[in-house]
Amino acid sequence: MKILVINGVNMNMLGMREPDKYGSMTLNDLEKELYAMSFELGIELETFQSNFEGEIVEKIHSAKDTADAIVINAGAYTHTSVAIRDAISAVNLPTAEVHMTNIYKREEFRHHSFLAPVCIGQISGFGINSYKLGLKAVVDYLSNDNKNVF
Amino acid sequence: MKILVINGVNMNMLGMREPDKYGSMTLNDLEKELYAMSFELGIELETFQSNFEGEIVEKIHSAKDTADAIVINAGAYTHTSVAIRDAISAVNLPTAEVHMTNIYKREEFRHHSFLAPVCIGQISGFGINSYKLGLKAVVDYLSNDNKNVF
Amino acid sequence: MKILVINGVNMNMLGMREPDKYGSMTLNDLEKELYAMSFELGIELETFQSNFEGEIVEKIHSAKDTADAIVINAGAYTHTSVAIRDAISAVNLPTAEVHMTNIYKREEFRHHSFLAPVCIGQISGFGINSYKLGLKAVVDYLSNDNKNVF
Amino acid sequence: MKILVINGVNMNMLGMREPDKYGSMTLNDLEKELYAMSFELGIELETFQSNFEGEIVEKIHSAKDTADAIVINAGAYTHTSVAIRDAISAVNLPTAEVHMTNIYKREEFRHHSFLAPVCIGQISGFGINSYKLGLKAVVDYLSNDNKNVF
Amino acid sequence: MKILVINGVNMNMLGMREPDKYGSMTLNDLEKELYAMSFELGIELETFQSNFEGEIVEKIHSAKDTADAIVINAGAYTHTSVAIRDAISAVNLPTAEVHMTNIYKREEFRHHSFLAPVCIGQISGFGINSYKLGLKAVVDYLSNDNKNVF
Amino acid sequence: MKILVINGVNMNMLGMREPDKYGSMTLNDLEKELYAMSFELGIELETFQSNFEGEIVEKIHSAKDTADAIVINAGAYTHTSVAIRDAISAVNLPTAEVHMTNIYKREEFRHHSFLAPVCIGQISGFGINSYKLGLKAVVDYLSNDNKNVF
Amino acid sequence: MKILVINGVNMNMLGMREPDKYGSMTLNDLEKELYAMSFELGIELETFQSNFEGEIVEKIHSAKDTADAIVINAGAYTHTSVAIRDAISAVNLPTAEVHMTNIYKREEFRHHSFLAPVCIGQISGFGINSYKLGLKAVVDYLSNDNKNVF
Amino acid sequence: MKILVINGVNMNMLGMREPDKYGSMTLNDLEKELYAMSFELGIELETFQSNFEGEIVEKIHSAKDTADAIVINAGAYTHTSVAIRDAISAVNLPTAEVHMTNIYKREEFRHHSFLAPVCIGQISGFGINSYKLGLKAVVDYLSNDNKNVF
Amino acid sequence: MKILVINGVNMNMLGMREPDKYGSMTLNDLEKELYAMSFELGIELETFQSNFEGEIVEKIHSAKDTADAIVINAGAYTHTSVAIRDAISAVNLPTAEVHMTNIYKREEFRHHSFLAPVCIGQISGFGINSYKLGLKAVVDYLSNDNKNVF
Amino acid sequence: MKILVINGVNMNMLGMREPDKYGSMTLNDLEKELYAMSFELGIELETFQSNFEGEIVEKIHSAKDTADAIVINAGAYTHTSVAIRDAISAVNLPTAEVHMTNIYKREEFRHHSFLAPVCIGQISGFGINSYKLGLKAVVDYLSNDNKNVF
Amino acid sequence: MKILVINGVNMNMLGMREPDKYGSMTLNDLEKELYAMSFELGIELETFQSNFEGEIVEKIHSAKDTADAIVINAGAYTHTSVAIRDAISAVNLPTAEVHMTNIYKREEFRHHSFLAPVCIGQISGFGINSYKLGLKAVVDYLSNDNKNVF
Amino acid sequence: MKILVINGVNMNMLGMREPDKYGSMTLNDLEKELYAMSFELGIELETFQSNFEGEIVEKIHSAKDTADAIVINAGAYTHTSVAIRDAISAVNLPTAEVHMTNIYKREEFRHHSFLAPVCIGQISGFGINSYKLGLKAVVDYLSNDNKNVF
Repeated sequence: MKILVINGVNMNMLGMREPDKYGSMTLNDLEKELYAMSFELGIELETFQSNFEGEIVEKIHSAKDTADAIVINAGAYTHTSVAIRDAISAVNLPTAEVHMTNIYKREEFRHHSFLAPVCIGQISGFGINSYKLGLKAVVDYLSNDNKNVF
Repeated sequence: MKILVINGVNMNMLGMREPDKYGSMTLNDLEKELYAMSFELGIELETFQSNFEGEIVEKIHSAKDTADAIVINAGAYTHTSVAIRDAISAVNLPTAEVHMTNIYKREEFRHHSFLAPVCIGQISGFGINSYKLGLKAVVDYLSNDNKNVF
Repeated sequence: MKILVINGVNMNMLGMREPDKYGSMTLNDLEKELYAMSFELGIELETFQSNFEGEIVEKIHSAKDTADAIVINAGAYTHTSVAIRDAISAVNLPTAEVHMTNIYKREEFRHHSFLAPVCIGQISGFGINSYKLGLKAVVDYLSNDNKNVF
Repeated sequence: MKILVINGVNMNMLGMREPDKYGSMTLNDLEKELYAMSFELGIELETFQSNFEGEIVEKIHSAKDTADAIVINAGAYTHTSVAIRDAISAVNLPTAEVHMTNIYKREEFRHHSFLAPVCIGQISGFGINSYKLGLKAVVDYLSNDNKNVF
Repeated sequence: MKILVINGVNMNMLGMREPDKYGSMTLNDLEKELYAMSFELGIELETFQSNFEGEIVEKIHSAKDTADAIVINAGAYTHTSVAIRDAISAVNLPTAEVHMTNIYKREEFRHHSFLAPVCIGQISGFGINSYKLGLKAVVDYLSNDNKNVF
Repeated sequence: MKILVINGVNMNMLGMREPDKYGSMTLNDLEKELYAMSFELGIELETFQSNFEGEIVEKIHSAKDTADAIVINAGAYTHTSVAIRDAISAVNLPTAEVHMTNIYKREEFRHHSFLAPVCIGQISGFGINSYKLGLKAVVDYLSNDNKNVF
Repeated sequence: MKILVINGVNMNMLGMREPDKYGSMTLNDLEKELYAMSFELGIELETFQSNFEGEIVEKIHSAKDTADAIVINAGAYTHTSVAIRDAISAVNLPTAEVHMTNIYKREEFRHHSFLAPVCIGQISGFGINSYKLGLKAVVDYLSNDNKNVF
Repeated sequence: MKILVINGVNMNMLGMREPDKYGSMTLNDLEKELYAMSFELGIELETFQSNFEGEIVEKIHSAKDTADAIVINAGAYTHTSVAIRDAISAVNLPTAEVHMTNIYKREEFRHHSFLAPVCIGQISGFGINSYKLGLKAVVDYLSNDNKNVF
Repeated sequence: MKILVINGVNMNMLGMREPDKYGSMTLNDLEKELYAMSFELGIELETFQSNFEGEIVEKIHSAKDTADAIVINAGAYTHTSVAIRDAISAVNLPTAEVHMTNIYKREEFRHHSFLAPVCIGQISGFGINSYKLGLKAVVDYLSNDNKNVF
Repeated sequence: MKILVINGVNMNMLGMREPDKYGSMTLNDLEKELYAMSFELGIELETFQSNFEGEIVEKIHSAKDTADAIVINAGAYTHTSVAIRDAISAVNLPTAEVHMTNIYKREEFRHHSFLAPVCIGQISGFGINSYKLGLKAVVDYLSNDNKNVF
Repeated sequence: MKILVINGVNMNMLGMREPDKYGSMTLNDLEKELYAMSFELGIELETFQSNFEGEIVEKIHSAKDTADAIVINAGAYTHTSVAIRDAISAVNLPTAEVHMTNIYKREEFRHHSFLAPVCIGQISGFGINSYKLGLKAVVDYLSNDNKNVF
Repeated sequence: MKILVINGVNMNMLGMREPDKYGSMTLNDLEKELYAMSFELGIELETFQSNFEGEIVEKIHSAKDTADAIVINAGAYTHTSVAIRDAISAVNLPTAEVHMTNIYKREEFRHHSFLAPVCIGQISGFGINSYKLGLKAVVDYLSNDNKNVF
């Protein structure tokens, strides 16, 4: 079982950007924690970050052959990118959308996600724990024959 | 550490209601799984279900003195109840909003939650796993000195 | 064949409330007329009134095992209750929505019904006759193998 | 007592048009059933169908002198015709608006009726039974001294 | 100089329709007054009424060769007909839009006219005097070399 | 019979302002033409112009005792002044709203008039002729016992 | 003269809930102050609090026979309850709507009250003084023959 | 303690304007009542009325040095004047917004107040009593150390 | 293979109407070009024009038995006619919607087509070539077993 | 004559992506068909695909010197990219917008194209035939002296 | 070269009003700085402040003959005054709109300026430097033959 | 002091693109003028242009360590990029948003800037002078201890 974790635009600034919103942990720190967790769960992990909508789209395309599920925090592209939405639909992999902050506490335009309707589900507001919960969610999902865990 | 899990309106019909959306597990089954998980996590759990907005409000009030955090799936009241939102604000306990279905795949009026802006975060779409992830989320939150897990 | 007629919030004030809109017949009078009509139609009738959204929800739940169809005038809850809508979906019984007044002649917010899309149909504006027409409609519906009467 | 039943645009295609929505009964079949029902009720019936907004307007005008009430399914004109609305206001005859399908289950633009606010009431969703219920409704209305049947 | 006065849908009911809004003068009476006024002004007049959007469109087309200006009260089509708007644009004759009632005192949907932006101007609210003012307006307009009367 | 003609904000620039929209005639020229017309009609005329919303309000107040009707072109205040609307309601004099330009051909925000619903009617688009038609309209209105000229 | 003071949902948390918004006085303290004031005014007072929409509706119904006027702070139900609005209309008692906070300084959804249009008036923003002013307002209103105090 | 009571546009017409809405008491009468009440309360009162937005703005400016609080009924400017709102913010005096009529029973555009969010609170619908309640409200507010009266 | 080409309202004015938008070719010229093209393609063609919504509806009805596909430029009815939309749905023939002008460069209300969602596709902006492309499109569509040409 | 055909984001997945919407033909297959067609038409063709908004913008820039017209299917960028719109405006080449699917049958947000108003026209819904029709359209356009083909 | 700098409503409170937003410099201080800057630039300056919309309108009128360009901060009138917009259009002088605060960081209703579309440009957010930049902008504009400075 | 000037999408076409809107000066010419101005101001300048949203985001990231302030004309990305907005927030450098054209004179969708609320201020409409004014603005801002220049 292989999971691809995608971080979108501005996420390379993690730990350097608005620490009151995003904390002081860097992207590197975050990815290390996720690798540790993957080791425990006995799954394979790939991490990817890009500030380019086009690169994220192409990474998702390539995941069609290399991953079983996706965890994605597309950052600002969540709210503006029909392209990433269509890429997720195109590869048809189970995908969990995650956000560190609670997007429903922020500006009106962050309340809408173009990605949510083509993902299994969305996790928002639990800091870096959102990623871990998302990782857990897709692993459980895959372990249950690709169906929701009723 | 004690967590209160609240199930709102129509959730007593779980397993009997639209099985294509909500699966065949009953509310009783679900609560048993959560008690098992709580035992593993070494925390105390209380579960509660009501179809009355007023009872949910009063349960939240009482949680002020009896619980450390709340996991809530208010069902349809998510989209219409300012009262429950205000109750959560009033007791000021860390709260995770959960939904079995991906509310962003459903009718327009289900995309808006009155509760989300007063909760730590929201988890939507992972079936009964949404509850487990929510439980995990608030336990981790409390274990980290009531701050998001950066 | 057993039909449940539900009257929602404020309907206990019938005959005492805004007689220019709702006439002088009381809820008791209305229910008597419906019982008489049921006798003629050779069906069984149960009537119910509540001012509590939660009680209406639970009555609908219980109808799953005790009724073949529902006639409902939810009163003001028509326009605000996703909970009652979901209860109707949950029990999946053929339901006719009725209103004594023509809701399309009244305030803008009364033009929208959360219940209509999950009912077979809606009857609005014919005074207490709306109930009789609704009762006739569900009986005819059930008599035609649960399909619309083409 | 004489009732005019008006069928609007595309209703001549009944039985030939989208049978999953409108059934297989033709307009001719429907009108025969209504004539039979009128005979039973001891009233006089006139039926009329046109695909022309102008013809429907003029039929309503002429009803001023020839009918006591109207039952109308204006089809698509329901949602676009202020002209037919004004014609109903002009002749000031008690009118019941009927629809075979539940318009509140269909496209957003079918949720609004220009006719509803100038009719006594609206009946929607009961297949051809909607016409029968509408016919019953106006006959009852006229039998009660032109007032709603409280 | 020849002026065409067009009366749209339901205007044949003038004098018979909602007398509190439209008075008791018939269309025939109105047209007689306009002929008398035309005689005084030394102009030629043609009057036309139709309840058919298509006939009004074609009358406007034919006016291209037979009239110098148009006075139009399209009735309800004012608010719904792009077709009549396009016909006026197509023939490019100076046109005055008139209304007996003050459309800005009535329902919201009557506040918008599809015709107004392709007419010289609009006169609304002065009863049958609206027609006379409109007739005067286009005659003055034509007498001033087809330009507004600065 | 005495009529008050009010010109609102920027109308003192007439003849100097955007001549393609408003022509080259000055306010003085316009008022002279209206005085000539009043002489012909055998009525008394008062003209008034102000760029101050407050002055226009007070002029309308004073008209209660000194005029029988008002013709008003409030200029830009048409679209923003509830105050002038309320002044017209307060004095309850028959008022005709006039505009030189066709406001429905211009920016969206000029399509709405706060004054129209409290005036008898509105005349828009006929250049200075709009004033003459408005003057004629209120004189005819007063000559017919303060009722619309049916 | 007897006045009923209704406190709605979450108001039992007064003094315990968001003290920066609602102060530290408890509901009990508040009611004591209102009883003292009633004694001074020589009127009879009844106080009531409920977190249930249905109970508030039924309390209002019962007031028809037991009170002369109502002072109501429905809390969150102000913004969502058509049911309470209809109950007030049904009993037709003079009602003053009060709010401790200035609802126009808070979230957009708190700016709209379903109750305001069926009350005599609304008082918002003066802390517990809002209740006292509301009590004074209805007493004065009743003392002036059920008419506004012009 | 000195209070400034400001009456805005058209309020000089009180007693002469729409008596069904505003009663027959004149502005002079109203101010006399307020002076009497001030005498009883042992406070100093200044009253001011203007139909000019600019004058109201400047009066508020001057109040910075001459008054301790403001009671304002800006009339129609309530709904259109950002200028008066900014003036209140600029002088930062506790201000009560009052309205004689219940603005929530009137036209949609009167439901929004630009002033409310910068005032302590709003009182609407109690006729001239609204002023007295407002006066009482600011006096109480000032007597409690410039804080809301919890 | 037989194709019906429908021209809607005002299209008979082609060549005479706003030549900057629609060119100088007449409807007759256009139809001749389409017949020539049909001859080349080896298909049968029928052309039809009407200014009546009702006639267009009935022509579409009759096409059920006489044509294999439709090319339609409904003119202004594109934006207002639910009736024509329903007629296309009723006959269920593959239909191409065409427009000479680019409707997305014109007024806002022309950006929406009621017909587009029930047609195979839409072609807009290529002058009379839009018809030729539309004709080619439906012929290709039919030649590929009634499926889109992937 | 040289035409540039641009395929936007996710179009490289053609044949692999949602085959029910886009068929099983790959981008390579599609481009081969277009080259074949170009050979027949005697024109030169260049094809280009990119998932990067910036690359599409720069390709359009370069087309200024290397192409006579553009056929573009920008995919998801159609609905979100003002940048591509501005690039088309900047180079001012005749451009046809094409879509394989009928975008008016899909989600609301796909009904709006930022590109349409700066293109000659739009073709939507005919599968890969949309490209061929678009190619034909621009070739005809160029063959007619850069004017629409009236 | 003579420039008129207009300060609108409440700007006389500068230095006394909300110092966190507007700083502690008074209007007098600001004008002194602008006079000094004008001396350096070798231009003539006139400054004007008014709280009256009507006075600002008339000052702009008079500028037609006495100034070459205008720099205006209309304060709150920016968002509500069509009158000032029309005055700027009427005199047709190059005008720069300036704001001390960044209006796009403030309340929603301050994001819209009625003046911007009739000015050369807008400068917002740079404190009193906004005026200096605006002064520089119009001087440069005039020095380049009344064209934008490409 | 070092300033970074960023030009966004399509700005490389300056001088080649819509010269009526953007003039004939190229990007190279513009940057030369800004370097000259920087030399005069005694500051260091870096210029950057990209058509890629991702590259602009990364340039802003890198500015965190290499620049003291930013002047940005993001072109079309102004209206669509939450990503660039977040990048500016992330680096927290004082930023001036500039536009050559007056965006408030153009299409509705250009009136909204995602960047404005996170910049110090915005300058729009003064051609290339907008850049110079923006450069001046940030230099003044930095010279005044990072506070607005009151």
